Formats: sequence, structure tokens, C-alpha cells
Amino acid sequence: MAQKPSIPKGTRDFSPVEMVKRNYIFDTVKSVFQKYGYLPIETPAMENLSTLLGKYGEEGDKLLFKILNSGDYLKKADAGLLAEKASNKVITQLSEKGLRYDLTVPFARYVVQHQNEISFPFKRYQIQPVWRADRPQKGRYREFFQCDVDVVGSNSLLNEVELIQIVDEVYQLLNINVVLKLNNRKVLSGIAEIINASDKIVDITVAIDKLDKIGLEKVNEELASKGLSEEAIQTIQPIIMLSGTNREKVAKLREVLAASEVGLKGVDELETVLNYLDVLNLDLEVELDLTLARGLNYYTGAIFEVKSKDVAIGSITGGGRYDDLTGIFGLKDVSGVGISFGADRIYDVMNQLELFPKADGAKTRAMFVNFGGEDELYALGILSQIRKAGINAELFPDNAKMKKQMNYANKKEIPFVVLSGEEERQEGVVTLKNMETGEQSKLGVDELIKVISI
Amino acid sequence: MAQKPSIPKGTRDFSPVEMVKRNYIFDTVKSVFQKYGYLPIETPAMENLSTLLGKYGEEGDKLLFKILNSGDYLKKADAGLLAEKASNKVITQLSEKGLRYDLTVPFARYVVQHQNEISFPFKRYQIQPVWRADRPQKGRYREFFQCDVDVVGSNSLLNEVELIQIVDEVYQLLNINVVLKLNNRKVLSGIAEIINASDKIVDITVAIDKLDKIGLEKVNEELASKGLSEEAIQTIQPIIMLSGTNREKVAKLREVLAASEVGLKGVDELETVLNYLDVLNLDLEVELDLTLARGLNYYTGAIFEVKSKDVAIGSITGGGRYDDLTGIFGLKDVSGVGISFGADRIYDVMNQLELFPKADGAKTRAMFVNFGGEDELYALGILSQIRKAGINAELFPDNAKMKKQMNYANKKEIPFVVLSGEEERQEGVVTLKNMETGEQSKLGVDELIKVISI
Repeated sequence: MAQKPSIPKGTRDFSPVEMVKRNYIFDTVKSVFQKYGYLPIETPAMENLSTLLGKYGEEGDKLLFKILNSGDYLKKADAGLLAEKASNKVITQLSEKGLRYDLTVPFARYVVQHQNEISFPFKRYQIQPVWRADRPQKGRYREFFQCDVDVVGSNSLLNEVELIQIVDEVYQLLNINVVLKLNNRKVLSGIAEIINASDKIVDITVAIDKLDKIGLEKVNEELASKGLSEEAIQTIQPIIMLSGTNREKVAKLREVLAASEVGLKGVDELETVLNYLDVLNLDLEVELDLTLARGLNYYTGAIFEVKSKDVAIGSITGGGRYDDLTGIFGLKDVSGVGISFGADRIYDVMNQLELFPKADGAKTRAMFVNFGGEDELYALGILSQIRKAGINAELFPDNAKMKKQMNYANKKEIPFVVLSGEEERQEGVVTLKNMETGEQSKLGVDELIKVISI
Repeated sequence: MAQKPSIPKGTRDFSPVEMVKRNYIFDTVKSVFQKYGYLPIETPAMENLSTLLGKYGEEGDKLLFKILNSGDYLKKADAGLLAEKASNKVITQLSEKGLRYDLTVPFARYVVQHQNEISFPFKRYQIQPVWRADRPQKGRYREFFQCDVDVVGSNSLLNEVELIQIVDEVYQLLNINVVLKLNNRKVLSGIAEIINASDKIVDITVAIDKLDKIGLEKVNEELASKGLSEEAIQTIQPIIMLSGTNREKVAKLREVLAASEVGLKGVDELETVLNYLDVLNLDLEVELDLTLARGLNYYTGAIFEVKSKDVAIGSITGGGRYDDLTGIFGLKDVSGVGISFGADRIYDVMNQLELFPKADGAKTRAMFVNFGGEDELYALGILSQIRKAGINAELFPDNAKMKKQMNYANKKEIPFVVLSGEEERQEGVVTLKNMETGEQSKLGVDELIKVISI
């Protein structure tokens, strides 16, 4: 029976046009990752539920896609729980596996499982889809790709610097104007320490973030409403109003945080990173931003976030240092730092700004019109030479009407059409049509190759 | 709590070393696919169960990985079926989605769903993992990759020829000696027709396949035991003993199948393909092999299979023409032809024959030893120049003991180590160590780039 085909909500098919663009992004980030000595790993789509459960909070557990056990999956399930329809309680009796929710937990699992094969520091990147049973909405999918690059097993701040270099190089290649926001978790801890309010750090960063919009007075009111004492609010005034160059901010922080050991450690780390960046002389705009907090419980040192300057779409890359990624799987004291490139958002930014290259090495450069018989064989011979020169080209497979063949080339956005009929064959040439300008010219094969090369 | 981490049976982690090799295979096939005008698509890992069920037979339905519905998945399930623990009957009440089992059914679904956006003939390739709840064993996984390349919407035999060209080019690039076996489903139908035994065609091909091992007499005995009449067995004697060049085989088949319209059509198709191949003058060994049957119900024209000549591992590529891929989803009369490259087996062949290139563009070419302080900055400056030249290189992130740093380079199989300590810095040079030969030499940066380039 014929059925109207569709795909699960929140998932996507990627057409050739979309794939070529997506691969342009993936190939670019990969080439940069590799230039810095990062190599790929891949982990299975399915992980044991015991690996995944409890790692993303209660809400995360619900959003995991669970795989039904194979065979007679109800056999061992508790009859009482089934009768009660206790979906949550009986779930681990029906399902032992889930689809990965991110690349971080599988990476931690990988590092612990393969610790004896790995030579640390371990520099890896991973580009794979992840799945979340989120409510689908614009820009939020149930299957989407993450591009993570991490180095674990080294405390050196050179790693932070290297990731910033990678950000710089990737976005230069992609032609996206970005600003990298930089912060340090230890600085935030220090701020909390000097006012003795470690539970208020999120409230503080959220309030500071509103300074531009609501002004100092309202910010202070908000802090008071969150339970900060008048004294505490006074103490952090210089931090709320922190401005100037990154160096000026660092100097001011060092002054305000003088009484906090951890705070000063954070300032030192920030300064060291800035020192490296000065030497490296990057084009990238780097801005010290205290309002950047990103998953506070997770990060322990540097925090990064990258935003497009031309499209308001939120963070397109983010990450930071974590000191205990693998502890949950039994391997203590492995510090790491990593960032994740948001492929879907980068795609949207590039699409909106029309930054994708028109001529992409993956696309077809030329289509030969099929005139059948001897002409077809003539075309096949020339095609071999063109492909040997590394050019993607094709012959329409049927001797169909010219209009149909030209339509095909048009729809596939093939920039050149080659006519090699009887006349051309007798002369040993081809007629080349530029599909954009409409221009036609007769050429020999060598010249043809030159013209249609990217 | 620490737990000993593991992955589901039948699944695999891929280490950097394995990934670089796998990507070498994927990148090679992709580059060839694209050279012939094929472009990638991707479909979601999850398909609706209604798309998948019933497409792979009863056994296939069992081997599908099913995704438990989100939320209160038991709520709508039939209480009676749950109480009976009727796993099979209740399954579609608990699960609406499954992981894709192959790339063919999702491709058919894609073509039908997007028929108005596609310009036919549609040339696409698809490289993605598939999942099967098979019993895991050596060489058989529950998650594995398929590389499919197909063209649909064209009856031209030029498409068959193009796929053979692709096989030729891929295996030349991968340096694997192969033979391509060619057959045609219509020829097999013709054989069945002339002896009026269309249900026996599998028995016949299986019996013929044993000719070399058991001899003609035993083959005839086997055919008799399968219910073929004495007359039928006599009629197909020339086919059982078919030998000689492809052209001689075609001539003999034309003679024997003279009474079968469909058989002669198959012979014509074979001959046309051979004619094209003569003109194209491929290096590939192509052998007409009547014992090749591959999923008879599915294919309707040409059938291909590729085997390594040096490693006995079964078929490493296979495919054929099908006339009704999309009918099941309501789009009739779309003929297509496609082949699938078996990445896991190709990997095993290349590993066994040591065919992977030692110097791969994805690997790190050089590691700089970290001497700290000024020397570190000196190294960073040179690294920038090296990377600008397109070379993958890294600086060990910590000023650790020399032995530790050299060990790291060794384990990561980095071919060159660069020493740029105080002495080198003063002279504006580096000391380059070739990790394979142990040779050391002092070089300027330009020379360094020349030596470590691939």
C-alpha cells in the first residue's frame, strides 16, 4: 500500500544543496582542528543508559531517546509496574540503551574506557549528531550536529590560547565577523568570595548583564532584591561598572579581588591568556566579559563564547575549562578545556549573509548534453580528460530533448553546459555555454579545462 | 558513583588512528562520486516505524531498533496486551520510531517526499551509519556505515557504465586489485523462462556456482534433486558450462536464450554495457558471471559485485538496477541503479595489505618540544608560519620532561619533532629530528617547511 511518506518531527532531511553548504562548514573546522594537531574520534549513536542517566539532570533524563530492548522485551518487566502503567519506574526494565544526548559524556566515557591506549594530552575533535526529545521549534531540532574540540590531560593555559587561535582561524576562513567573549570561573568565584555570597553568583552576573539596558541604579536594586547586603553591593560597584580595555579591566579586578586567593588566580589566568594573544597578534576581537557565566557548575577556569557581529542569533561557539570531566566514570584529576561549534547556527548566519562560496569543489562544474550515438562516445572521451584534471563533470544519461537536459543543468545550478554534437566532433572541439551569462564559445579540450576549473 | 564504562555490544568507538584511515576511504569515494556529478544527501537516524516496517521481511522487522515514545509511553498502551506481555502486538503502541536499517528505504522515502524539489535523473550518494539488532560477531556490527551511490529516474545503460567507471576509479585510488562481476537479472529470468521454471532460478545459480568445486555431473544431480526435469537440465547445459571471454559468453547466451524475449533483452543490455566499457578502455577486470544473483526480488536489470583479488573477504561493493524502488511509497515507474561500497570490509582489506598511506594529510606532521618561557613564544611564531603553509603541527602544551614529550610524539606517530630551544632561538633556526631515522639537522624556517611537507 502506498503511504504518504514523512519523517519524525524535529528531524530533517538534508538535500544536496544543503549538504554541500554544511560540508563546507564541517570541512573548514576539521581542516583547522587538524592543523593544530587535533584528530577525530567517533563514538556509537547508542550508549548504555547507565552511561547517560543522571548526567544531564532530571529534565535531561526525560529528554533521552531510549531504545527498546530487542526480542521479548516485556518478558522480564515487572507485571505490577506494567499494570500500573508506571512508565518511569519500568523504563530501565524495557530499555538498556539510549541515543547520545551530547558529545561530552560519550567523550568522558571514551577517555576513561581507553585511558591506557591514549597518550595524554589527548587532543581530539568529534563531529556527530546528537538526539534530544525536546519540543521541536524554530531552530531547535531533535537531531542536530555538534562539533566539539577538546584537549584533556594538560593544565597549560596554552590550550586555552590554542582554542582561541582556532576560533580566529575558523571564522576568518568562513568570513564571519565575530567577537570572542572571555571570562574565568575563578574570577566569578572570587567575586562571590569577597562578599561572602557564593550562592548569588548567577544573580550577580545576570544583574550586571542588564547594566546597559536598565542603568546602575536598577542593577543595584535588583541585587538588593536578590538578598545582597548594602555593603556587598558597594564592594562590587567597581566590578559592575567594569569598563575600558581588557588590560584595564584586569588591573581593576586585581585590585578589587585582592583578598580572594581564587579570584587572583583567575585574574592571573586571564592575564596570561591575554599576554599570549598579544604575542600572537590575532585579528580576532577578544573581549573580557564578566557577565559570561555558561553552565557554572561545569566549568572551573576559562569560559568562552563567540558571537556574530552581523547577525543576532546568540552564541555560535562556546566552551571552557573543566577540571573533572572523567571523575564520574572513575578517572580523577583529568583537567581539560574544549569548545563546541554550533553548526546549525553558523549555517544560518552564513546563509543570511550569503557567505557560502558559489563555486564549491563538491559541486558539478559542467554538464555535457547527450546527443546519443557517436556524439555520446565523443563526450565520454572528453569527460575522462576533464575528470582526470580533477573537475566534477557529468553527461546527461539520456538522449533527451534539449530543453529537458538544460532544465536539469539549471536546476542543479551547474555553471557550464558543454555541447559536443556532430559539428563539434568533426572539428575536434566543443561549444561551451556559460549558464550565468549565456555566452557561448568554441574551445579545444585544454582550453575547456582551463575555463571551467575553479 | 564511579562505574566501569563500556559501550553496547556490537557497537564501536573509533580511535584517531582508525578514524584517519576510515576517512581516507570515505574521502576517496566521495571525491570520485562528486567527479561524476553525484551529490550527498543525509536522512535522519530515526524514521517513522511505518516507513520501515514490512520493508525487510519478517526477520528484518525484528532486527529494527525501536525508539520508545517519549513521556508517559505506557499511557495509551492496551492494558490487556501489557498484562499478557504480548511484546510483539503492543510494540507499535509503545514505539513510533525506529533507527534506519539501511540507506535504500530512507532514500526511496526521500525521493517520494521531495519529488517536486528533485530534478531527475537524481544522482545522489549517501554515507551514514545504519543499525541492526543482529547477533554481533566477527565482522558483523549493530552499527555500521553504508556508502550508497544511486541514480534514479533514468533508464539509460550509461548509468550502469558510469557506476562501473566509479568502481574502477575508486579501487585504483585505493590501490586494491579487484574484479567486477557482472550479471543481468533479465538473463536469469530468460533462463528460467526457457525451461519454464521461474521458481528454480536461485537453485540454478547456486548449483552452477559449485561447478568448479564439484564438477558437472554433481551439478546436474543437484539440479535434478531440486526438481528440474531431465530436459530442462539438458537445455541449460551450455549455460552451466559457459566459459571463455565475456563476448563469447554473450554470443552463447544469445543462442541459448533465442526463445526468450526477456532473456534476449538482458543479453542486449549486457552487450551494450560491454560495448561502452570497450570504448572507455578501463583497467578494471570485468567478468560476466551468471552465478551472481544478489537479492533477486529486488533487482530487475544489471547486477554487480566487486571482489578483492588478494583477500578472501566476500563482496566489497555490490548493487544493480531496480525498476520500482519508490512504488511502495506511491511513486510508480521510477527506475534506478545503484551500488554500495562496504566501508568495513574495504578497511579490513586495506589494513591487511597495508595499503593505507603513511603520510596522511589529516595527521600531525611535526611536534615542537616545549622549552617554556621565551622559547615557547619562539616556537609559537614558527608554528604560525608552518600552519599558514597548510601543515598540521603542534606545540606540546606543557614544559614537561623531554622524555614525556618525545613519548607523546612517538605514540601519536608524529614523523618529525622540532627542537627550538635557546640555542636555536639565538641562531634563528630549529633542530629537526626525523622520528623514523633518528637523524637531526639544523634548518631555517623555509627549509623546515619544505622538509616536513607531504
